[in-house]
Amino acid sequence: MDPALAELAAELPAHALLTDADQVEGYRRDAAADPKAGHPMAVVRATSTADVQCVLRWAGRHRVPVVPRGAGSGLSGGANAVDGCVVLTTERMRDIRIDPDNRVAVVQPGALNADVKRAAAQHGLWYPPDPASVDISSIGGNTATNAGGLCCVKYGVTSDYVLGMEVVLADGTAVTLGGPRLKDVAGLSLTKLFVGSEGILGVITRVTLRLIPAQSQQSTVVAVFSAVQDAANAVVAITATVRPAMLELMDHASINAVEDYRRMGLDRSAQALLLIQSDASGDAATEVAHIVDACRSCGATEVFATDDPEEGAGFTAARRVVGLALMQLGTLLLEDVTVPIPELPALLAGIHRIATECDILICVVAHAGDGNTHPVVVFDPDDPDARARAERAFSEVMDLAIAMGGTITGEHGVGRLKRDWLPKQLGDDVIMLTRRVKDALDPLGILNPGAVLHP
Amino acid sequence: MDPALAELAAELPAHALLTDADQVEGYRRDAAADPKAGHPMAVVRATSTADVQCVLRWAGRHRVPVVPRGAGSGLSGGANAVDGCVVLTTERMRDIRIDPDNRVAVVQPGALNADVKRAAAQHGLWYPPDPASVDISSIGGNTATNAGGLCCVKYGVTSDYVLGMEVVLADGTAVTLGGPRLKDVAGLSLTKLFVGSEGILGVITRVTLRLIPAQSQQSTVVAVFSAVQDAANAVVAITATVRPAMLELMDHASINAVEDYRRMGLDRSAQALLLIQSDASGDAATEVAHIVDACRSCGATEVFATDDPEEGAGFTAARRVVGLALMQLGTLLLEDVTVPIPELPALLAGIHRIATECDILICVVAHAGDGNTHPVVVFDPDDPDARARAERAFSEVMDLAIAMGGTITGEHGVGRLKRDWLPKQLGDDVIMLTRRVKDALDPLGILNPGAVLHP
Repeated sequence: MDPALAELAAELPAHALLTDADQVEGYRRDAAADPKAGHPMAVVRATSTADVQCVLRWAGRHRVPVVPRGAGSGLSGGANAVDGCVVLTTERMRDIRIDPDNRVAVVQPGALNADVKRAAAQHGLWYPPDPASVDISSIGGNTATNAGGLCCVKYGVTSDYVLGMEVVLADGTAVTLGGPRLKDVAGLSLTKLFVGSEGILGVITRVTLRLIPAQSQQSTVVAVFSAVQDAANAVVAITATVRPAMLELMDHASINAVEDYRRMGLDRSAQALLLIQSDASGDAATEVAHIVDACRSCGATEVFATDDPEEGAGFTAARRVVGLALMQLGTLLLEDVTVPIPELPALLAGIHRIATECDILICVVAHAGDGNTHPVVVFDPDDPDARARAERAFSEVMDLAIAMGGTITGEHGVGRLKRDWLPKQLGDDVIMLTRRVKDALDPLGILNPGAVLHP
Repeated sequence: MDPALAELAAELPAHALLTDADQVEGYRRDAAADPKAGHPMAVVRATSTADVQCVLRWAGRHRVPVVPRGAGSGLSGGANAVDGCVVLTTERMRDIRIDPDNRVAVVQPGALNADVKRAAAQHGLWYPPDPASVDISSIGGNTATNAGGLCCVKYGVTSDYVLGMEVVLADGTAVTLGGPRLKDVAGLSLTKLFVGSEGILGVITRVTLRLIPAQSQQSTVVAVFSAVQDAANAVVAITATVRPAMLELMDHASINAVEDYRRMGLDRSAQALLLIQSDASGDAATEVAHIVDACRSCGATEVFATDDPEEGAGFTAARRVVGLALMQLGTLLLEDVTVPIPELPALLAGIHRIATECDILICVVAHAGDGNTHPVVVFDPDDPDARARAERAFSEVMDLAIAMGGTITGEHGVGRLKRDWLPKQLGDDVIMLTRRVKDALDPLGILNPGAVLHP
């Protein structure tokens, strides 16, 4: 074993350090499966904050890059290895403590989002953020990427629920930021700075999450449209006056991919479908009536409303299965562009144009209620020309979103896959500001080099 | 005129620079009226982002400290002058643009909170954060301090509504962060870092605020208690299962100060009063019933519930007048300590003990629903011994809150008055981290030196 690695192994608990090539290979990439991921020299499966501190102190001494990793479900290459790095995974740190009196969950980073939800539910409490990866993504990764999901349109994103954290800085110092306090302005908002920092500022080792009372029962509306533009207009009309708890869009290609994958009873002829939920409890009838009206007045060919939770769950399941369904069609480049709501119709029109020009399939699913779309570019990985056209489409969709005042990433993060577009969105001055913060906190540049910023 | 000042005057619009001693005197202190405030060399009343850039570039060249100032309503000395500084006020930058399609307000920093609320209401929209200073405090100051208020218990604080901003950095560069997008994870969460940064990282020149649909009608509950502890226990019981839109506490001394100041019909014999509002609309009856039950089971001697908005507004007015009422009693040291909700009864007991030990009057009003209390130390300014005892009490309340896992400031900010307690709460490592961020963004240390951190 390399002498530096031997030194690290001696400082860590038994079996925390993996150097076997087959084992290490499993930690090279996140779910974006980027073929350009590098080769780590080792993997550390931390069991404690002390392990994380040990790795960072060692990495500083030996100038070894450290790539932090949660559950590996990331979609932008943020946890992809760089050559010669140590991948530091928190997957074994899974403790969840619910404090019902303070209505917080104190959670280790490896705990899965769904496990936190379940633990909270035992106390009648709810942790809202619900990325589609809810069953497989960890709270550490959710926090590091400021993950979103379906309920954000009403309930906000991960950052809105992180009250505090323990984070290990580049030099191995563990600091506690914030805590179980709903109001706290003592000092800079460092907690919020670390949320969404994608592992470039520190490694999160504990998170204090705000919980809220369990959600009221949802009513569900499904509306079918013969044109995507009509559906997009309906999104604008709905959000103008009510706050639905979910407002999802699936286009024709997505609907048919789902039906091909698993018969869910969706209308294959629809050009777009909106799936909307209201949890306004006492006011649900009013809210649902408004939603139905908005869909009809925007040209919906069919609108179905139900208060039955099981029927609603059936439609939600159809939405949640889109990712798996699309994987059957080919290799995917998953977009995450978000635009201001009024730009949504124009964005969807532009995506259609790009798909035609690049002669490539782009299926669109969207958290439409907050303008967050996931155009999915589908291509045959064995056709180099198709790959080139897919990459061109991927790039053009981001350029389009930026031109509309949107963002290249609403909830997945910049990672390594979107790094080259970040300066186009933010401008050089904001990139410079970002680098100043990064350099101040990680002067040796050992933390996740190449993610977010060019190394 | 000093040659450096003459140079500045030449670069600014006419009348932007004030050097007349009488005029400058009016900008020396914020509302904490700290006698230790320094003497500025001049005041700049900026009219544009360009003016702010001009001041900071000039200040960098001449190494002159700049103290940014909003409406001067701050309560922690954050806008107090330091000797030889330029006070840079944004009070003349008051534009408000409501974008109903994006449901945002794009606001210059000098616009008053209440003016933004009114402008939003014209479109059926609501800007929730409501510090008690709502009529006199500006959005720039609200953002720089991450201001709270009464509705935060359900609707969150300023940070939860700031989607983006323009901020002028120490070197005069103006950068745009975030924007009218509900989800945006492109790059570090710099917007959130600047919220609550109290002018030590940059000067905010424009803010994009999220608006939500107008609030549903509120039901109001007033509960009277013969012991503060009973009221505190009721707060814990209420928040355990429902999310009231307001949950305020007034103690015996506050109630009587209000009645002395303006006859509002409050029960002078009460040891504590809770003022609670529910806006759960369809569910209000259920929520109000729970609140009433919780108050009764915790020993309330009288509970009054009303759906009449005017009656409710009358009680809210009584709560809002507390500050003015207390000013009649003497000079005030206004506390802002926040503890986890379950610690609230013990905090109130501890404050009572400190008041007794220091032989000083401490009146308590509290945004009790989020654990944010305002113990107000009242003393005779002409009695040096009383001042010393008041300062001791002020200090001991903060020590107590820290010992309980609380914070020295829930919504007012650290400013200069609480700077010496910040390391006790955060610890040396977090202070060091804070300094690293500060030094990276303001290497010359010209931005609000002495606020938050020791210079």
